[in-house]
Amino acid sequence: MTRRLALVGLGPGDPELVTAQAVRVLNEVAYFLVADKTEQHPGTADLLAMREEICARYVTGKPRIVPVPDPERDRDDPADYGAAVQDWHEARAVAFERALLDNEGDAAILVWGDPALYDSAIRLAHRIVERGAVDLTVEVIPGLSSIQLLAARHRLVLNTVGGPVTVTTGRRLLDDAASHDNLVVVLDGALTCRRLPDPDAWHLWWGANLGSADEKLVAGRLSEVADVAWRARSQARQARGWVMDTYLLRRC
Amino acid sequence: MTRRLALVGLGPGDPELVTAQAVRVLNEVAYFLVADKTEQHPGTADLLAMREEICARYVTGKPRIVPVPDPERDRDDPADYGAAVQDWHEARAVAFERALLDNEGDAAILVWGDPALYDSAIRLAHRIVERGAVDLTVEVIPGLSSIQLLAARHRLVLNTVGGPVTVTTGRRLLDDAASHDNLVVVLDGALTCRRLPDPDAWHLWWGANLGSADEKLVAGRLSEVADVAWRARSQARQARGWVMDTYLLRRC
Repeated sequence: MTRRLALVGLGPGDPELVTAQAVRVLNEVAYFLVADKTEQHPGTADLLAMREEICARYVTGKPRIVPVPDPERDRDDPADYGAAVQDWHEARAVAFERALLDNEGDAAILVWGDPALYDSAIRLAHRIVERGAVDLTVEVIPGLSSIQLLAARHRLVLNTVGGPVTVTTGRRLLDDAASHDNLVVVLDGALTCRRLPDPDAWHLWWGANLGSADEKLVAGRLSEVADVAWRARSQARQARGWVMDTYLLRRC
Repeated sequence: MTRRLALVGLGPGDPELVTAQAVRVLNEVAYFLVADKTEQHPGTADLLAMREEICARYVTGKPRIVPVPDPERDRDDPADYGAAVQDWHEARAVAFERALLDNEGDAAILVWGDPALYDSAIRLAHRIVERGAVDLTVEVIPGLSSIQLLAARHRLVLNTVGGPVTVTTGRRLLDDAASHDNLVVVLDGALTCRRLPDPDAWHLWWGANLGSADEKLVAGRLSEVADVAWRARSQARQARGWVMDTYLLRRC
């Protein structure tokens, strides 16, 4: 019997930014699979709670949330980043496959932001299908990305007029900034823009924990505000045990 | 008296992809300003009707829609694209300012997709504020972009693992494809990827009128599917008088 696996983008955290389509699908499935990182990162327990809150707000009846313990991941080995990510994906596929086999009916995986941007759920679902142990129909429900909320809060257009915008990671920023004038940076725990050689040449629009009660916003010439953003990031991280941030860099 | 001007992203067209926040704001304002292009493009009347349908579905009471005739725009002068866009923005700002002065209370501008991506409403609002004739507080409500729906329909992650994605326009594609491996293309009336010199080296994921009843999807090696996408695009355009499409190109 084919079961439905919906990858549901919940948006950047604010329950108001969930779409009507996501709400419909959340009400159609039997249970919710949630990657549980609390063992590795105890501070992320409230990220689990935030997802439960979104479900409780929009789902009729008591939502059944099935936490799937996240496998260990070696984030500190830059020598073979690709292979480390592959291994982690495989271990995760096994864990989610087990959860699907242990439960009956259609399922949804709850995803922060948009499953199409820097998230592993789509590749995870393709891998579960390839493994062949569960008969699945995979469906993707798009969600707002924190990049879009960053732009909204700063009342900013991400592209220049008729120009491009490149979304990249902290890991690649120093290379990519050499050949691009307009960059969105994600997955950057070190606020790598602080290491750009020409901080007077860039404008920064930064945001952390966007859409939450302790949202932080900083904007200005990189040379003048990089340290301000770093301090705001450190404070936010200290307050909750985690921080999610993203930013736009544009040559002045 | 300061009035509120909310730029509300409605998403790519499917009423289900509107967020709860957009619905709240649509119900808080007194009227809706809508750029009306029907004089120049009579075929776009149903784009106006689609917005009216979204308002009718989510707004309590009869929504008051104020169409603002769109000024003429010279799209065929590539010699000075930037200046032509500037002139058009100024004429538009004057037209919207007039509509704001002629009506009372808070207003919303309805935007397809996300105001932060290849849309003029944010720059328009900044320009109205700069002109100084109306006292405004501008607020941006993010919306799902058609790019995200393209990815959802193809069950596709827009970035490669740990890699970047560049969003660019049809006008710039031939240049940008020379130095990028992973591109989203918007505003491309000519499906410019058909002119790339090495169509065997690219994979295409294309979609038109995403989220509507006559959505079209094409995916495959560019050399094999470029003509298929072009025919689908032409048919869609013939059927409704307009077509909205976007695509991802990735080196194989």
